[in-house]
Amino acid sequence: MTYFRDTIEKMAGYVPGFQPKTADVIKLNSNENPWPASPKVFEAIAELTSLDFQRYPEAAGDSFRAAAAQVLNVRPENIICTNGGDDLLTICVRVCCDHTRPMAYAQPTYSLYPVLANIQGCEAVEVPRGENGSLDELAKINAPLTIVCNPNAPTCDMLPIDALAELAGRLTGVLLIDEAYVDFAEDNAIRLVHDFENVLILRSMSKGYSLAGLRFGFGIASPKLIAGLMKAKDSYNADVISLAAATAAIKDQAHLKSNVEKIIAERTRLTEQLTSLGFEVSPSQTNFLLSRCVGCDAKAIHEALKKQNIFIRYFSLDGLTDKLRITIGTPEQNDKLLAALKDVLD
Amino acid sequence: MTYFRDTIEKMAGYVPGFQPKTADVIKLNSNENPWPASPKVFEAIAELTSLDFQRYPEAAGDSFRAAAAQVLNVRPENIICTNGGDDLLTICVRVCCDHTRPMAYAQPTYSLYPVLANIQGCEAVEVPRGENGSLDELAKINAPLTIVCNPNAPTCDMLPIDALAELAGRLTGVLLIDEAYVDFAEDNAIRLVHDFENVLILRSMSKGYSLAGLRFGFGIASPKLIAGLMKAKDSYNADVISLAAATAAIKDQAHLKSNVEKIIAERTRLTEQLTSLGFEVSPSQTNFLLSRCVGCDAKAIHEALKKQNIFIRYFSLDGLTDKLRITIGTPEQNDKLLAALKDVLD
Repeated sequence: MTYFRDTIEKMAGYVPGFQPKTADVIKLNSNENPWPASPKVFEAIAELTSLDFQRYPEAAGDSFRAAAAQVLNVRPENIICTNGGDDLLTICVRVCCDHTRPMAYAQPTYSLYPVLANIQGCEAVEVPRGENGSLDELAKINAPLTIVCNPNAPTCDMLPIDALAELAGRLTGVLLIDEAYVDFAEDNAIRLVHDFENVLILRSMSKGYSLAGLRFGFGIASPKLIAGLMKAKDSYNADVISLAAATAAIKDQAHLKSNVEKIIAERTRLTEQLTSLGFEVSPSQTNFLLSRCVGCDAKAIHEALKKQNIFIRYFSLDGLTDKLRITIGTPEQNDKLLAALKDVLD
Repeated sequence: MTYFRDTIEKMAGYVPGFQPKTADVIKLNSNENPWPASPKVFEAIAELTSLDFQRYPEAAGDSFRAAAAQVLNVRPENIICTNGGDDLLTICVRVCCDHTRPMAYAQPTYSLYPVLANIQGCEAVEVPRGENGSLDELAKINAPLTIVCNPNAPTCDMLPIDALAELAGRLTGVLLIDEAYVDFAEDNAIRLVHDFENVLILRSMSKGYSLAGLRFGFGIASPKLIAGLMKAKDSYNADVISLAAATAAIKDQAHLKSNVEKIIAERTRLTEQLTSLGFEVSPSQTNFLLSRCVGCDAKAIHEALKKQNIFIRYFSLDGLTDKLRITIGTPEQNDKLLAALKDVLD
């Protein structure tokens, strides 16, 4: 007997992403936010007492659910709190998929989806991401779980919400819309939750809210979907600190807005500058850019910048080997990146 | 098509445990620690910068692994960090069990084990917990995953580590020893990790370390088991705050020791006092007591105390309906409980 299920035995070992330890690097490789979170977050954490740490947290995170419901114009029972967006993805795959119930999505997209399918022992039906995100093909497959990352990573683009509404209407299974990056986009899919029982929206505090270290995400869906997801979550999956911090963060929409505006302004500038350096830059609805190297070697550029403590992302994957993924930094960080790129290209 | 897998559809909806909101109740129903965590914990949290929140945490929690390895006399690669002990249980069931690979344990024990089996769609082979914890029967079943809670909840008793060593040697699958309460016990099973590749020990910061609100647990096992578990954990399952707090907590063994000593002294006193009130109290190696009502109605006592804002635990389960589970509180809390019990019994 082996200790693990076959699918686990055959999986490659987990390789954590590169996270430089020192603070003085220019870190544009993980789509983190370069600006601090709302000061209200740190006030909320400072107000916690030692008794708050001694006791178990709210099981369903009702304080956060109430605050988020108000901000997002839904009801608390439309919300589930999770330990980062990845926890919601894991829970959703566990309740929707098994060896008889596949998931489906268009590639390229977030690389965790096939990993979760593999762990769960369900089939991952992949279609190439073409015109309109291949939504018509996904509708025809009609899997028990369909995942659309919107805006999509790593391609930065966004599908119109009307097209997702049409997909939701054609699917009989769950449509998970992964909106991890939506705070930087022009639109979002929350209105679909009012019309479609089968739509689940994933949100994250890691990107727009500058709280990647906190591990807090949440799902928005019909009470029926939320109730099913609740059955499989760990009883106390969100801790007392992250609940307090996330509640303070979502209440401070003014801070989010000003933070996002700064990043969008830099996104416009960086897009122009990279284009003038000869890159083909896809229009972005996220906090990062996917830039195609025209007549240059993307991998070599990635390595050259790394030597200067400037970290961006290179993927050795089909369709991505000539591209670089660059997180939008502060104006100063972006200037240093542009200067270094100019040097390397000269 | 239903949205969820059959096993999820059929599960009862999640009912969170009762957690009174106000601070002035006497809360002896969830086995929380009545004393504050180490001051070092709060210092470590205060030292975090906003940049720590912006960036993703250490994927494997290496700072905690290094600190815990030193305290527990194992190597960092023997340790996996999890979002509470429940996260470790979930991960372990996901990698070890499926519809062809059952788990086995003796009842009564922690009520989460059958829930996790149900979610995973694996069989839960249950034996009645008899002499020596029915370890011989568990060895004969030889399931891919065998779980022994030691000390056991809710029975408070502890099996000798030599008996667990013998069980580990007879099993070809994984033996998970759930040591959530071991900080209050006379012995522990860590030495088995050096001798048995198939032993996984679960530890929690919720009980001995007074950090139930933090959601931090960890596993101790052979590097082979740890590597398999790592494949199925969420990439960043432990957040930056809980990693910093847990690292500070485990380094402060003097605080743990003094905290545990206070609870054990009260455990002795409360056992004597409850006995003199006419209860049959099982000897406890945990931070709670299981007390059998002799000639009284356990459920009625539970309700009567609740009306006075004193919360203890009653289980309407086979073999437990005449018993009350009481968490050890501070001397003041225990005095109030005893006075109220005396009133109710008079």
